[in-house]
Amino acid sequence: MAINVSIAENSLPPPSATPTSGAGVLDVRLPPPTTTAKKLQHRLLEIFFPDDPLHRFKDQTLSRKFVLGLQYFLPILQWAPHYTLKLLKSDVVSGLTIASLAIPQGISYAKLANLPPIIGLYSSFVPPLIYSVLGSSKHLAVGPVSIASLVMGTMLREAVSEEENPTLYLQLVFTATFFAGLFQASLGFLRLGFVIDFLSKATLVGFMAGAAVIVALQQLKGLLGIIHFTSKMQLIPVLSSVFNENNEWSWQTIVMGMCFLIVLLVTRQISMRNPKLFWISAAAPLTSVILSTALVACLKSKLPDIQTIGKLPEGVNPPSANMLFFSGRYIGLAIKTGIITGILSLTEGIAVGRTFATLKNYQVDGNKEMMAIGLMNMSGSCTSCYVTTGSFSRSAVNYNAGAQTAVSNIVMAAAVLITLLFLMPLFRYTPNLILAAIIITAVVGLIDYKGVYELWKVDKLDFLAALCSFFGVLFISVPIGLAIAVGISVFKILLHVTRPNTVPLGNIPGTQVYQSLNRYREAVRIPSFFIIAVEAPIYFANSAYLQERILRWIREEEGWLASNSCSDMKCVILDMTAVTGIDTSGIDLITELQRMLNLRSIKLVLVNPVGSVMEKLHHSNILESFGFEGLYLTIGEAVMDISSSCKAEP
Amino acid sequence: MAINVSIAENSLPPPSATPTSGAGVLDVRLPPPTTTAKKLQHRLLEIFFPDDPLHRFKDQTLSRKFVLGLQYFLPILQWAPHYTLKLLKSDVVSGLTIASLAIPQGISYAKLANLPPIIGLYSSFVPPLIYSVLGSSKHLAVGPVSIASLVMGTMLREAVSEEENPTLYLQLVFTATFFAGLFQASLGFLRLGFVIDFLSKATLVGFMAGAAVIVALQQLKGLLGIIHFTSKMQLIPVLSSVFNENNEWSWQTIVMGMCFLIVLLVTRQISMRNPKLFWISAAAPLTSVILSTALVACLKSKLPDIQTIGKLPEGVNPPSANMLFFSGRYIGLAIKTGIITGILSLTEGIAVGRTFATLKNYQVDGNKEMMAIGLMNMSGSCTSCYVTTGSFSRSAVNYNAGAQTAVSNIVMAAAVLITLLFLMPLFRYTPNLILAAIIITAVVGLIDYKGVYELWKVDKLDFLAALCSFFGVLFISVPIGLAIAVGISVFKILLHVTRPNTVPLGNIPGTQVYQSLNRYREAVRIPSFFIIAVEAPIYFANSAYLQERILRWIREEEGWLASNSCSDMKCVILDMTAVTGIDTSGIDLITELQRMLNLRSIKLVLVNPVGSVMEKLHHSNILESFGFEGLYLTIGEAVMDISSSCKAEP
Repeated sequence: MAINVSIAENSLPPPSATPTSGAGVLDVRLPPPTTTAKKLQHRLLEIFFPDDPLHRFKDQTLSRKFVLGLQYFLPILQWAPHYTLKLLKSDVVSGLTIASLAIPQGISYAKLANLPPIIGLYSSFVPPLIYSVLGSSKHLAVGPVSIASLVMGTMLREAVSEEENPTLYLQLVFTATFFAGLFQASLGFLRLGFVIDFLSKATLVGFMAGAAVIVALQQLKGLLGIIHFTSKMQLIPVLSSVFNENNEWSWQTIVMGMCFLIVLLVTRQISMRNPKLFWISAAAPLTSVILSTALVACLKSKLPDIQTIGKLPEGVNPPSANMLFFSGRYIGLAIKTGIITGILSLTEGIAVGRTFATLKNYQVDGNKEMMAIGLMNMSGSCTSCYVTTGSFSRSAVNYNAGAQTAVSNIVMAAAVLITLLFLMPLFRYTPNLILAAIIITAVVGLIDYKGVYELWKVDKLDFLAALCSFFGVLFISVPIGLAIAVGISVFKILLHVTRPNTVPLGNIPGTQVYQSLNRYREAVRIPSFFIIAVEAPIYFANSAYLQERILRWIREEEGWLASNSCSDMKCVILDMTAVTGIDTSGIDLITELQRMLNLRSIKLVLVNPVGSVMEKLHHSNILESFGFEGLYLTIGEAVMDISSSCKAEP
Repeated sequence: MAINVSIAENSLPPPSATPTSGAGVLDVRLPPPTTTAKKLQHRLLEIFFPDDPLHRFKDQTLSRKFVLGLQYFLPILQWAPHYTLKLLKSDVVSGLTIASLAIPQGISYAKLANLPPIIGLYSSFVPPLIYSVLGSSKHLAVGPVSIASLVMGTMLREAVSEEENPTLYLQLVFTATFFAGLFQASLGFLRLGFVIDFLSKATLVGFMAGAAVIVALQQLKGLLGIIHFTSKMQLIPVLSSVFNENNEWSWQTIVMGMCFLIVLLVTRQISMRNPKLFWISAAAPLTSVILSTALVACLKSKLPDIQTIGKLPEGVNPPSANMLFFSGRYIGLAIKTGIITGILSLTEGIAVGRTFATLKNYQVDGNKEMMAIGLMNMSGSCTSCYVTTGSFSRSAVNYNAGAQTAVSNIVMAAAVLITLLFLMPLFRYTPNLILAAIIITAVVGLIDYKGVYELWKVDKLDFLAALCSFFGVLFISVPIGLAIAVGISVFKILLHVTRPNTVPLGNIPGTQVYQSLNRYREAVRIPSFFIIAVEAPIYFANSAYLQERILRWIREEEGWLASNSCSDMKCVILDMTAVTGIDTSGIDLITELQRMLNLRSIKLVLVNPVGSVMEKLHHSNILESFGFEGLYLTIGEAVMDISSSCKAEP
């Protein structure tokens, strides 16, 4: 059923004039009729397949479809056939560059997760190989990252001490990694990738900065040479640990640590100022490790206070599938840790992948990436790796070093393999302080001052969300800080829906345009009409508010009319253009408003309800009470039609 | 800074034509400049004082303001001075009518909360008196209600058995009632009344129906005469309890119970069919109690199986302030129970108050009502009352019996007082089965078949929310059922924001109206243009989706253009009318979209951004990249201006 509403044809004269002759007919129309099943199907397609992933398969032969399908799941098949020697040259350079970063960072980040350094190297070997087969980003450099390492370390250490029970701790780490991978792959497979969108930019800016501060402060342990350090992650216990244990401070460690830290920070600054010199900051960590190791090895007797990594086992990743557990006391903790580190590492990986894809104009399919990262972590958990993803810092170096395909990850893995097989004894005298300095240099980049300022400038509530997640992480805990920030982001959406804008409109003289009276000074009220736009869907969460607010607008408007001795209000026009949805409570609101206005002999008119709203109004039979004269396509038509019909019956 | 955009004056010819002469100038304008503090103030006023509660005080003398203020907090001062004998007559009749309902229901509902029956009568005495002073509804009949009684009983019984530890149980009840009142009063005082809006109609319909089924099934204990009954509230344990204990079934109880149940249900039906006969169902419970008590008292020796209430103490409410506790093991449970029963009873009370206020055309101020109900419960907790609110069934009877003011509550309280002082011994032989029959009759009305059908017809997701809360209550537990339903309602809002509609628009020939191509068959594409409307705020939660979706629309449109050998797409117009908000992620989306389209030599144009969006676009400096030609007030202007400038530079 369509409610027909006559309106004058094309260009409408100003509202006070009578309609021109030759009027056409235009309806406020329902969307084409469709079944509930069809609507559900459309809705589900929009939820799960907004990118229409099958469009490549349309109008293709069966064999071509098979090849395309294989290429979809194994992107390596897309680019490997066209791989050239020239590409290889670039990839080898970039692969070796990121390896020189990945090896010291791998060892350092493993320490952050309270793991033996070797696990960090294991995690820089298997996952990059798997990603190079499954992943669709050309620039992602895969391996352990600081945030996920930190969160995993914090969450597991609360239940199990890695010193007292190293085997159980390792089991927990691998199991959590397995669940992280499972969670990531499921999100991708079930096409629920939008879950990570709920970690808004504002949330992440605050969270990253908070985590960076915590991580940097924790490194004071290594930089100052403190032995007995708190296992807590909050600001206060860490700081008190630093200052209470000042008898353990070692001046040798402090001097050496500070020197290397300054060198690393300076090289980072140089590369940031001039991206062409990226290799300076890329080479600095490995160079520092070599230098400091050599220094400690030579002056061992003179530097007795400096703590070193110690002996590391040689050889490639041992299998660890037998260390996974799927029941018992700690299974809940493992799943929780897996989900949180999984979502964090996914967010980082996807964001990094998208950033560099945008720079080089190719597409990264979020859901496919999630499956790739998830499978990579699941396999990693069976080969002694902990949670890995695309690292922002290493991917940036990879990009700047000219990486062309995922082969750079393979080259990096090869370099790590050589290290694992032959170079492990060299790390024996590597001092812990250099790892601390490397971590600090890496996490400093996570503090995004400019981003925070931008948030403040554009959106105060976003800024508040960032602030809360920053302080939440700093003073309470990482998961709670994250939860607070997500809560604020969701609250912001709800607030927008709960307290929507309502804007009284006026006509801009000489046009058919109706705009906010507040924003457009020249807009004028139309005598006897009160036009109001509702700027939100009308839902249970705001229908009570909207009713109160609209009645208050009418009350205030009537007061204004009385004090300016204008004619009485005869018609309230509700501009529904921005009412993008309505539910049963919203329909009740409209019924109620109509009833209350009718009691005061004021007519209520709806203008331009969108398709889905129109449909619901129709189903609820409320349209019948509006009839032919209560529904218009534009405000101009409504004003003209009603004022002319008022004149007709004076 | 305002971006000036020239448009042709008033009535625009169809887009292909050249602009008429005498063109005026109209800007897409920023809202008037204002400070952050002012904006914050405006926002906070909208959040907490949308109804402008102080408008009555404007332009009044100081003494008048004082009187108005007193009347605001004590509504009795508003109506008491004008109280007449005629009003009193109506109120006495209605007060006595609801007393005849309140006494048996009070006793029954107390049983539902596992409390001694006398507490139900206490709770029907003090709270109505307090409400009549503080409350602003004229028809609300105050006392214990079934849902809140059930929820309180269930939640407390899980921790403490009322049989093993009756004193602790009572302490818990009063403490929970105190916290319920405190929570309610705080919501009102802090003007956070919108919290209860999150219990949507759909949620409540399902929840009430589920609770009604549970309550009714629980009454089988009394109706069948079972002694050993489960203390659980879920469907399965209750049903298994009924059938496993069939050796305890007592045929005397069953026969008598069924007879009274049928009588009560029939009288209810009669009153529902003919509201004028409301007194039949109003009188039925008390009559049944009297009849059944007399029957049992006379035939005591012949009906040994029938369980009776037993001896009840006489006298008015003893003080119970000394039984409240504010620390210890159970404080968490008391607070949780208080908040949940508080919010449930508040929802019922406010909804009932609003319903009857609407019928008689007066306003009930939600926040003020919350304070009244809250203070009533806080005082109740100190005078041996448990949680009370406005009951739907008794308020309906009150309304039908012609109640004019809150004096009917005073009359009811007086009747309860007389009962407490003199008539308690009469209840000694009242059989439990009659209480069960009264409860069943009362809760049957909570199952709203028609409401559920309406939900199905209008909004499938609302229907799903109702279904989930129904089954959640039935199979899991009352608080979890409630939580699921609220979760679904919130999820629905988030889904709407996460997956917003995007609608390609076309021009309706002969007009300046642009509408959905899908909904309006006569709408036509404009060559070289692609016009798309986004129907939601652009937030972090949907910016990734929108980017993908808009690019897909463009891809599909380009395919369509190619297959119909039309001219290439030159300009994408984004209709922002319904984009009611934007955040930093949304701004990134627009920047990104512009960049990607520019790479393909397609122009991106924004049309009619609302005030707050315009402001944020301005603050983020993105407007500069759009410049004078990227921002228009209407689609018509954009199309005309751009197509004419394209012709100018062929």
